[in-house]
Amino acid sequence: MRIEVLDTTLRDGSQGEGVHLSLGDKFAIAETLCELGIPLIEAGNPASNPKDAAFFAEAAQCPGLFGRLVAFGSTRKRERTADEDPGLSALIAAGTPTVTLFGKCWDFQVRAVLGAEPEENLAMIADSVARLKAAGRRVIFDAEHFFDGWKADPGYALACLKTAAQAGADLCCLCDTNGGSFPEEIAAGVRAARKALPSLPLGVHCHNDMGMAEACSLAGLEAGAVQVQGTFLGFGERCGNCNLSALIPSLQLKKGWELIPPEGLRAWTPAARRVADILNFSLPSSLPYVGRSAFAHKGGMHADAVLKDPATFEQVSPEAVGNSRRFLISEVSGRGMLAEKIGRFFPELTKDNRQTARILARLKELEQEGYQFESAEAGLVLAVMRALKEYAPCFELVRYQTVNEQPAVEGVPSSALVKIRVNGKTRLCCGEGNGPVNSLDKALREALTAFYPSVKEMSLTDYKVRVLTPQAATAAVVRVLITSTDGRSEWSTVGVSSDVIDASFKALSDSIEYKILILDKQGDCTKQSPR
Amino acid sequence: MRIEVLDTTLRDGSQGEGVHLSLGDKFAIAETLCELGIPLIEAGNPASNPKDAAFFAEAAQCPGLFGRLVAFGSTRKRERTADEDPGLSALIAAGTPTVTLFGKCWDFQVRAVLGAEPEENLAMIADSVARLKAAGRRVIFDAEHFFDGWKADPGYALACLKTAAQAGADLCCLCDTNGGSFPEEIAAGVRAARKALPSLPLGVHCHNDMGMAEACSLAGLEAGAVQVQGTFLGFGERCGNCNLSALIPSLQLKKGWELIPPEGLRAWTPAARRVADILNFSLPSSLPYVGRSAFAHKGGMHADAVLKDPATFEQVSPEAVGNSRRFLISEVSGRGMLAEKIGRFFPELTKDNRQTARILARLKELEQEGYQFESAEAGLVLAVMRALKEYAPCFELVRYQTVNEQPAVEGVPSSALVKIRVNGKTRLCCGEGNGPVNSLDKALREALTAFYPSVKEMSLTDYKVRVLTPQAATAAVVRVLITSTDGRSEWSTVGVSSDVIDASFKALSDSIEYKILILDKQGDCTKQSPR
Repeated sequence: MRIEVLDTTLRDGSQGEGVHLSLGDKFAIAETLCELGIPLIEAGNPASNPKDAAFFAEAAQCPGLFGRLVAFGSTRKRERTADEDPGLSALIAAGTPTVTLFGKCWDFQVRAVLGAEPEENLAMIADSVARLKAAGRRVIFDAEHFFDGWKADPGYALACLKTAAQAGADLCCLCDTNGGSFPEEIAAGVRAARKALPSLPLGVHCHNDMGMAEACSLAGLEAGAVQVQGTFLGFGERCGNCNLSALIPSLQLKKGWELIPPEGLRAWTPAARRVADILNFSLPSSLPYVGRSAFAHKGGMHADAVLKDPATFEQVSPEAVGNSRRFLISEVSGRGMLAEKIGRFFPELTKDNRQTARILARLKELEQEGYQFESAEAGLVLAVMRALKEYAPCFELVRYQTVNEQPAVEGVPSSALVKIRVNGKTRLCCGEGNGPVNSLDKALREALTAFYPSVKEMSLTDYKVRVLTPQAATAAVVRVLITSTDGRSEWSTVGVSSDVIDASFKALSDSIEYKILILDKQGDCTKQSPR
Repeated sequence: MRIEVLDTTLRDGSQGEGVHLSLGDKFAIAETLCELGIPLIEAGNPASNPKDAAFFAEAAQCPGLFGRLVAFGSTRKRERTADEDPGLSALIAAGTPTVTLFGKCWDFQVRAVLGAEPEENLAMIADSVARLKAAGRRVIFDAEHFFDGWKADPGYALACLKTAAQAGADLCCLCDTNGGSFPEEIAAGVRAARKALPSLPLGVHCHNDMGMAEACSLAGLEAGAVQVQGTFLGFGERCGNCNLSALIPSLQLKKGWELIPPEGLRAWTPAARRVADILNFSLPSSLPYVGRSAFAHKGGMHADAVLKDPATFEQVSPEAVGNSRRFLISEVSGRGMLAEKIGRFFPELTKDNRQTARILARLKELEQEGYQFESAEAGLVLAVMRALKEYAPCFELVRYQTVNEQPAVEGVPSSALVKIRVNGKTRLCCGEGNGPVNSLDKALREALTAFYPSVKEMSLTDYKVRVLTPQAATAAVVRVLITSTDGRSEWSTVGVSSDVIDASFKALSDSIEYKILILDKQGDCTKQSPR
């Protein structure tokens, strides 16, 4: 069975509390979803805010991505004709091949929220779909509150679908907007729509207010829907949307349905971690398939049994979703994955090389400390070099000191001094700036430029701080992720410490070492360097 | 329909990663569950560790609680008779009226893990149940891996149930131990067991490895099971167990089934927060019914609709589960939402009050600077007080200075001094710690405690850093969100600056001001304070 997937992390997901996506964040998430092979990526409402409009305009330059993007908007306003409605104009102007148009299907909502008559709402649906079809778009009609509407007045809810279909909608997605329908109600609603409109393809869009969004989606698909909408990590308003990271592996691995390319599933867990990083959320460890604990065995009896045969306590194999079993250290697939990942830097480290297992063990130790390399491949390359003992550091830190004060002197709150040693020669430099990391960065760069002039080419493009053990509050362990560029390449490094400044220093000095030890020794850096 | 609930937070829940319960924690959780009216509380395996045995011995002194407790243990060892088996003796010695006995029902597991023959396992089940019945216990037989076993060899899985029933088991609970069965498979397994053993009461015990534990439990109950097992917050091995905090309200409020007394549901959310505190976990904000975001409305259109009629975007009323509606203040908010949100602190600020528009404008300015109040309602209240000019700060910062250095002196990388003025008196204090914010927090609290002794009651429970303009890298603007508690209330504040230390200081000092200016002036803080 083939099921079409629409991810709406960038639209419905951004309604989640605490979710704030910059333009760059939206691109990074869209590219990750694209790499996984998600066919439709609903990316925003171009009429609702300038950021979403700017996103579509920029994305139009990336043809591989743009073909998958879906713009989202509402049926025309009561007081406008479809041709004059600015929302529909913005939807068309976004230029995506597919658009989602949402409209109300519950007579109570039509009256209470729109202040319109049910018949008027049908006209709004018909006109809006017709205008989008005339503009050559594939139109998904999102039937908002379909299930509640169908329970209240089945005739009207189905009339809304019929109106959309007659106006040319290519698919109607039935939404359980309030998340209050049980799986059997979703199945019954889909069956009713199929019976009323046998040739209309249907989708389902479920919310998680009862903790059943994945089971509701499954029930809708088994009843005949051919599209499922959700968000990759389940983010969304209130309790979130159907969590695609949980649903897709269940359907693809256990039911044998086709949703995404098989290689997408093997990259599943690292992608989930990357998206969580972009959102600056900690991935809950108990998340199905992609959580850190999803294949972790704690109970002694369970762990023993898994050592005898993993099928005793694992419903699918962790490798199938790019995750790993937690207590096994010398894991064959782990070596294979590492070899694959670092092959272009260390071709000698094949899966069966004795050193590869040793390096993997060292990386697992670092991960225990809080390091995480999914978003920091440059940091990974340096960690492997160090584990190989091939590594000669390009400088040695003698000391640093940062001072922050309020009131700030001449408006500059922070200053730093750094002393380093290179080939026996020391150099002491200082810097000042907006904060401790900024001043430390300036002082360190100043000191290193005397020995390595290419450091001048570098600048930082991103800086992220993640608190790893929030229950300890300000004494928690922090992970700092830094992205740097030299105008040709961009690379990321990571530092972990209970002190945010120490963690930042580690990530900063790794970013400089990567520039000196790896990039400056390569010819054309652009293609070679990882992010 | 009446359904019996068995909560196994204290037994299966403690298999979850990061769950560590002291004896006192176990009592505190058991009492909370008891107050909610949960009839059966599975509290541990007395044979597996002395803490669980001690728990049962102490609990025997509390008759109201003890009658609900269930001790858990395994069928006898292969090499022992039931009468000589120490595990069964410990189970009986626990003295609880009800016991759970788990035994294998999947021939593959019997051979691979126990190294026993299937017939031998049946004898182990029969002997063990018989001994417990002879001791006068109500016996729940937990049919481990029932669903996988039934799929592999239905005859053998059903023979295990039949053996337990013939030996006197009062109820057989069918377990989806690996969490890999779909709802319809759970329903089919329950139907098969009902058909084979029509007079045997059945239960279901589901795990969440596909994110469907609640829907699976529902499917089992609709197929005829009369008991549901789960953990109150879904904690458990790997991806956790059926989350009772999500399932019970759905069944009781929406299906009208009887599981717990109605007053238990009205205390649901505070109980969930208390249990999360005991477990030292942050309650995920998107958790159904009990999460902070479960009834939070962010999108402008949704918020407007809920103000017109809550049923537009809420599947149940928040009061029914002891939670409350929240309107998230963001760029899209209007005067009506602000008035609604701050009404209990500033009743004079109605939607049409002239001041309300002025305050909203000030809040939007702060949001432009990077402030964000949707997760920091205490910060919002302070910002409104300041905009109203009603505000007299409870202290004035004269200066602070933080110093960070590597190598660290005596392992402590950071130190801070803070000088404040209160009513004309100054006080200079210092602190040291793992990082600049930790040491600054200590110094500031030390200085303030002399003037405001209640500051001693406060501690930080969460600390989050978000970089807002990552393109400027280490010179970016950062937003710090701090959550504090005084043991009764929990509240969040926010600070924004280009300097992470300055941003942290602002959030820290706001958290203290909120405690002094708002909480300490209220009578019963518990109900009044926002999070």
